Amino acid sequence: MNKILIANRGEIALRIMRSAREMGIKTVAVFSEADRDALHVLYADEAICIGPPPSNQSYLSGEKIIEACKATGAEAIHPGYGFLSENAGFARLVKESGLILIGPTPEAMEIMGNKLSAKAAALKYNIPMVPGTEHAITDVEEAKIRAVEVGFPILIKAAAGGGGKGMRIVEKAADFEEQMKLAVSEATSAFGDGSVFIERYVSSPRHIEIQILGDTNGNIVHLFERECSVQRRHQKVIEEAPSSILTEETRKKMGECAVDVARSVNYVGAGTVEFILDENLDFFFLEMNTRLQVEHPVTEMITGLDLVKEQIKIARGEKLSYKQGDLSIKGHAIELRVYAEDPENNFLPDIGILETYTTPKGNGVRVDDGFKQGMEIPIYYDPMIAKLITYGKDREEAIERMIRAIDEYDITGIKTTLAFGKFVMQHTAFKEGNFDTHFVGKYFNAESLKNENEDEALMAALIAVASLKKPDVVQIQKDVAAASNWRKNRIKFN
Amino acid sequence: MNKILIANRGEIALRIMRSAREMGIKTVAVFSEADRDALHVLYADEAICIGPPPSNQSYLSGEKIIEACKATGAEAIHPGYGFLSENAGFARLVKESGLILIGPTPEAMEIMGNKLSAKAAALKYNIPMVPGTEHAITDVEEAKIRAVEVGFPILIKAAAGGGGKGMRIVEKAADFEEQMKLAVSEATSAFGDGSVFIERYVSSPRHIEIQILGDTNGNIVHLFERECSVQRRHQKVIEEAPSSILTEETRKKMGECAVDVARSVNYVGAGTVEFILDENLDFFFLEMNTRLQVEHPVTEMITGLDLVKEQIKIARGEKLSYKQGDLSIKGHAIELRVYAEDPENNFLPDIGILETYTTPKGNGVRVDDGFKQGMEIPIYYDPMIAKLITYGKDREEAIERMIRAIDEYDITGIKTTLAFGKFVMQHTAFKEGNFDTHFVGKYFNAESLKNENEDEALMAALIAVASLKKPDVVQIQKDVAAASNWRKNRIKFN
Repeated sequence: MNKILIANRGEIALRIMRSAREMGIKTVAVFSEADRDALHVLYADEAICIGPPPSNQSYLSGEKIIEACKATGAEAIHPGYGFLSENAGFARLVKESGLILIGPTPEAMEIMGNKLSAKAAALKYNIPMVPGTEHAITDVEEAKIRAVEVGFPILIKAAAGGGGKGMRIVEKAADFEEQMKLAVSEATSAFGDGSVFIERYVSSPRHIEIQILGDTNGNIVHLFERECSVQRRHQKVIEEAPSSILTEETRKKMGECAVDVARSVNYVGAGTVEFILDENLDFFFLEMNTRLQVEHPVTEMITGLDLVKEQIKIARGEKLSYKQGDLSIKGHAIELRVYAEDPENNFLPDIGILETYTTPKGNGVRVDDGFKQGMEIPIYYDPMIAKLITYGKDREEAIERMIRAIDEYDITGIKTTLAFGKFVMQHTAFKEGNFDTHFVGKYFNAESLKNENEDEALMAALIAVASLKKPDVVQIQKDVAAASNWRKNRIKFN
Repeated sequence: MNKILIANRGEIALRIMRSAREMGIKTVAVFSEADRDALHVLYADEAICIGPPPSNQSYLSGEKIIEACKATGAEAIHPGYGFLSENAGFARLVKESGLILIGPTPEAMEIMGNKLSAKAAALKYNIPMVPGTEHAITDVEEAKIRAVEVGFPILIKAAAGGGGKGMRIVEKAADFEEQMKLAVSEATSAFGDGSVFIERYVSSPRHIEIQILGDTNGNIVHLFERECSVQRRHQKVIEEAPSSILTEETRKKMGECAVDVARSVNYVGAGTVEFILDENLDFFFLEMNTRLQVEHPVTEMITGLDLVKEQIKIARGEKLSYKQGDLSIKGHAIELRVYAEDPENNFLPDIGILETYTTPKGNGVRVDDGFKQGMEIPIYYDPMIAKLITYGKDREEAIERMIRAIDEYDITGIKTTLAFGKFVMQHTAFKEGNFDTHFVGKYFNAESLKNENEDEALMAALIAVASLKKPDVVQIQKDVAAASNWRKNRIKFN
């Protein structure tokens, strides 16, 4: 494999090119007209414009991407994440064009891309699922019997449902009949169909996923877990590895289940098996993502493996160079997705120009980004600016380092999730590892960031006073609570 | 310990402050008038100007530094490396002022600061020394007997010597008498003293050093070795850990010897025991550096420990939280010192303004620096711009990553050692681990970088042609040998 085309943009395109370059493989970038000056275009050995935004005219156009491969002589395509990365039709087109897709087979994508076929595949290996009825029911008596079997608390949800209509959480058996009737009646009036599903309600769910790698020789290993429970708008925003809650026993069981899920579709490449974990450390299969995840760096930090290189080696037909027993976890890593979003305004995108853009450095800090100072975050794409990853010998050090790195990160011109990230890192529940996917809804609101901003204003006033004094031997006391902010220290001694 | 003063500047001052900040400790910077706008000043919680350049009026003024501590309430001083870091007089002054020096005792500094007392201390633990005569001799017959005892090849050097005068390398016993007579006569005419020392000549020496840590409870561990054989003008320029040549057995022996050397002076803090290693993996004690080394990051990468945090914890009186058996090496790390020097002109300093300054990023890349774009490298201090450190699962990956990172590093306005670093990484002898301290003298000359520069010129021409074409679907072939350079890819598609 001498040359690969990266069918993506932004940080992930750059990140893939870096690994390819280290392997001595030439890279081809594709770009939309909105990305002419993007860093991934400048970094590649060759670059081809594949059309205007929005994405369906460029990054989602499989045919244009195949055409770009032919024009440049690229032999393989890395799809990154998002865009065409889980599109079985595209995977087939690549294969039919005599090219290599750096990813799983179209068949595996197809099975795992559909919730029903994915569950069916996983059930062949007795992977635990959230307990519940397999078919929709309407009869209250039958429902009650099943509810007792499943165990309380119970979630009743309309078969035809959506938007929370016909959905009821039932804490104990005594309440079931009444709630079931209400749910059926609500579902009937909302959807004209009163049938419902009954399943265990996981009241305090944690999102734990297992990274797996499979080669073309049928070897499959897992690279342990990532915890992604801190989410906003049901989207991951902070991820870490390992999870602070798993026991060695549960880690082992989940890893083995993930390998089985992968085996059920003869999985080749890098993939992720997602689970929901309850308060008792019981875990249930959610879905499998048949691509590289945004949060893959935390796994790289704790295992020392380069996942993109592993993907490329697998696509070249190489065997995995290690067995499960050779792999171990060293240290702890946390990733914060730095989005161009306003945490004080419901995390709405806040795009614009990066007027200041200075990234943190030093021991244990990694920044995967696709921008530099003066660039604009385009409106057409995902508003992620960077992934800030910190690594430490343990979770405490990774958190301390994340706070230090957030303070060092200097972005002006747009709102970002940096201050939100600091809020999470300093929150007792997060520090103690005592959180679930409700973390943001439970603890965070716009007020949470107010103190920080007031400190900044006070600091600005202090700096103004200090600069008026123009002292020779300068001693500026910065004993304000949050004085650890890089920005606050931008004092010129004139 | 709530507040520490960093009695240094540049990258090491920043690096120390980052660790302190992660530990929740406030930092005080000191700066000379030439460093008013330096990054370490901006980063600190407080900053004090301690006088004009040159260093003896500011960074070397122990009294001004103590005064700065008193003025800011700093309880401890971290001296970094260079400047006052190995000055026993300063260490005493700090102690007498009721402050804590984050470093060893004045006594340990004093003993290890003198070659004779250092050797005497090490000999108490039977640490191997380069075999040779302990006293100067003039008698040819006696010298011959000693030479045979020591073993050939032999180095004869004038006791009063210097500058290579009266120095002779003797390969075999048959040549000894003649060479000895020449050496004595040369020494007599040059220095008026014909007496000489006789010692084993290590023809292919490798510089291997062992990092040690000792706490105030008498526990001492080693953190394995660093190899620093690639030197220019007898100064380290590329370091790595672990060494590519050591066996597990030699590693263990050297580690134990280093711990013994430290024990000989009841060493407290971080220190480094330097050895010379010959072709047979026999090693001989050179000296001990009683401070943090420039190249400490490679040890941090392979052990996962933060050495500055360890120093601070030791200074707080904490016990080491691990035993020798808990420590292990994971992966491989290489450091390139990026100096403002012209490798094509005998590595002479080439100071000036950093017109462009973009640092590499991504998996396994760490940059410890003290500058940003637009800043000037001051003439008063060491011309090191940055330390570029790469980490990989093995040596091969660390090298590939270093080449990728060097290509990504964009510095214009001054000459640097970046291209020299790439030359070394690509050299067969280095890649095979087959080198010694003569590497630069043996393989490198200004011509070595010529091809790279010619490639750059060709690339510039190709880019000019491509930009004239203004193509819509752009395909620029960059099939030039060294096309992997970030700078070369700065193509605007207008």
